[in-house]
Amino acid sequence: MGMIKKPVNGMKDILPKEMKIRDYVTGLVKETYEGFGFVSIETPCVEHIENLCSKQGGENEKLIFKILKRGDKLNIDNAQTENDLVDSGLRYDLTLPLARYYANHSNELSTPFKALQMGSVFRADRPQKGRFRQFVQCDIDILGDPGYLAETELILATTTLLSKLDFKGFTVRINDRRILKAMAEYAGFEEKDYDNIFIILDKMDKIGLDGVREELVKNGYESGKADKYLRLFTDSRDALSAIRTLKAELGDHLSSEISENLERIITSVSETSSVDFKILFDPTLVRGMSYYTGTIFEIGMDEFSGSVAGGGRYDEMIGRFTGQNTPACGFSIGFERIITILLDKDFAVPGNNNKQVFLIEKGASNERICEILKEASELRNKGVGVLVCQMNKNKKFQKEQLIKDGYAAENIRDFYNSEFKN
Amino acid sequence: MGMIKKPVNGMKDILPKEMKIRDYVTGLVKETYEGFGFVSIETPCVEHIENLCSKQGGENEKLIFKILKRGDKLNIDNAQTENDLVDSGLRYDLTLPLARYYANHSNELSTPFKALQMGSVFRADRPQKGRFRQFVQCDIDILGDPGYLAETELILATTTLLSKLDFKGFTVRINDRRILKAMAEYAGFEEKDYDNIFIILDKMDKIGLDGVREELVKNGYESGKADKYLRLFTDSRDALSAIRTLKAELGDHLSSEISENLERIITSVSETSSVDFKILFDPTLVRGMSYYTGTIFEIGMDEFSGSVAGGGRYDEMIGRFTGQNTPACGFSIGFERIITILLDKDFAVPGNNNKQVFLIEKGASNERICEILKEASELRNKGVGVLVCQMNKNKKFQKEQLIKDGYAAENIRDFYNSEFKN
Repeated sequence: MGMIKKPVNGMKDILPKEMKIRDYVTGLVKETYEGFGFVSIETPCVEHIENLCSKQGGENEKLIFKILKRGDKLNIDNAQTENDLVDSGLRYDLTLPLARYYANHSNELSTPFKALQMGSVFRADRPQKGRFRQFVQCDIDILGDPGYLAETELILATTTLLSKLDFKGFTVRINDRRILKAMAEYAGFEEKDYDNIFIILDKMDKIGLDGVREELVKNGYESGKADKYLRLFTDSRDALSAIRTLKAELGDHLSSEISENLERIITSVSETSSVDFKILFDPTLVRGMSYYTGTIFEIGMDEFSGSVAGGGRYDEMIGRFTGQNTPACGFSIGFERIITILLDKDFAVPGNNNKQVFLIEKGASNERICEILKEASELRNKGVGVLVCQMNKNKKFQKEQLIKDGYAAENIRDFYNSEFKN
Repeated sequence: MGMIKKPVNGMKDILPKEMKIRDYVTGLVKETYEGFGFVSIETPCVEHIENLCSKQGGENEKLIFKILKRGDKLNIDNAQTENDLVDSGLRYDLTLPLARYYANHSNELSTPFKALQMGSVFRADRPQKGRFRQFVQCDIDILGDPGYLAETELILATTTLLSKLDFKGFTVRINDRRILKAMAEYAGFEEKDYDNIFIILDKMDKIGLDGVREELVKNGYESGKADKYLRLFTDSRDALSAIRTLKAELGDHLSSEISENLERIITSVSETSSVDFKILFDPTLVRGMSYYTGTIFEIGMDEFSGSVAGGGRYDEMIGRFTGQNTPACGFSIGFERIITILLDKDFAVPGNNNKQVFLIEKGASNERICEILKEASELRNKGVGVLVCQMNKNKKFQKEQLIKDGYAAENIRDFYNSEFKN
């Protein structure tokens, strides 16, 4: 078999320039969340196929890379379906592995447990621009805290991170799954139809109120109910009064505990944040995953469509492992999205730029090389980076390449065999 | 299907305490090698099955986790062998992906290219203490430099890293594949037997000269040849004179270019290093991988058996992808081994320990919570980490756990609803 130079379909090699930005963002993520008391953890890339196919992953479960059983366990002759051949697969997100991790280790962990997990996830999606089959997710979660302090801290920490990345003009939109349900109930829809209705509602930002109305009716829902439903979506700039107006309208369909919880998150975030951003109540915010049980939120930026972070409360997932529900709330940061934005705007990683290059003439004597290496060693001991390498035949091209790599022209020095030639 | 709490067989969840050390070592690795002009890159965890099964991986190829083809491509009914079901697998090392990467991107990269790659690799090994099926490798490689400057810089950088980790008393052992061959040729062995002879030679440190002799004879090699061979392995403390003595004995079996190359590496490393360690010529050093073509080296420590880093020159691997050989030389750092050693000696990650904890009484008012969060925000803006969380019912246990997590007792503060109760 011949060797193949390209990476496997849909995955990518990361070049030094991008890697520098990735390392920088990774460092900033760890530093920021550690400043909020989060601790880093890791889970394996490989998960039990039983966990991966447990209906916690929605559409992602169709995209699992499955791993062949090994040796004795593999019986190709009698295999009828894929799952006869596999016992594990690559994880498609970090939330399910986190729930398994917490279930497995909760007696070794603090309560509440504030976790930061960064790692690759894998989805056999159709490859397309900017979407890869292996990509890094960055999740922060607070497990064991049922109160709104969890949501507040998650939002404060994440907006702090974004502002450190010099992002400006971002907006946190927040909603609650239970508000979505109360609104649908108020309008008279049946519970079995909720998911379908929310899928249509989710298109609001693209097709507008009229588009949503049209599609609801087209899907067979009574236009009277659709009208009653859509009247609830009033435009309001002020988050708190929007929630209060909605609560007044919904009456007993929505417990005031839920609306007050949302008000408290909004108040505590906006009153205590040291970062400049907007926080809005957005009753059209749906978020796809069916595991969410309460608050949901998303962060977008004026300059870019789509979101750079999103998450919510999923109080019932850990119970799937332990038999006992554990409050859980988390954010997933769009790591790859952030990297793409930074690459697109030619982001320069901060740091000192006094790195040196020592180019050594080919054929220099061992004594001369030792002299040069000693000089490099002295600089390195002072914390100055030094790249030592042989001078190529085409020195001009070599220097151009080094400058492209980020070295300043005046920091590239030639060393000849006789130091007097220098 | 029920949910499974444990990680998949042979893989592990990483707890916060270990993760802190891993993050610290990762940071130190990046900082140190960047100081030597290396740049970080990444390759996907998944590789083409054709590349993985190309005989570059030796025994590791038996341990590949294979990934099922997807959708239309999968035809279970007609599948006869494993490879009818798969088109990719998880990488078992970082060297093969690096060769593919370089072959794919060489026109975008500097020459020489100094690469640092850290990432998970996967081997379906029999799980045993301290050996996992997913583990991090840390490889540094210099591609495109045929000279001994590459070996010298690799050794200087790696010993610098180990000394920064506060490891003391380590030894670099160095040899050359071509010396191994010259010695076997001198003794009169046939080329087809070399690999088998080297496997036996590799046991020298365990079974000694007599044991090696016995095993050679038991394997059917003439005792005269075995004796002639083993007389070459004289004990010498001084690396340079050992090489010269051996070269004199081997005569034309060994080109002086090869022995002088080794002498130059040893001289330039020992004369220019700012770190304290021994460098020895070790003619019994074999290193398993068949892809090595020249120098090979390993670093061990007095306190611990086995090696913490090893590598060598593999000038022919990239040519498998491009049709044109490219000089290549690299080190693989035993990342997991280093982590285990640091965990065993209860290594404390350096850094300031002024992190604060704010415990908030349950039921505190929103106003009070905002006050506390503002105080936290001010500290965080000054660079002081603050963990804010709700006070648990069992406050004593909570504090004990926090102290175990690394917070100083005096940095844990209680906040009550009325500030006067504090």
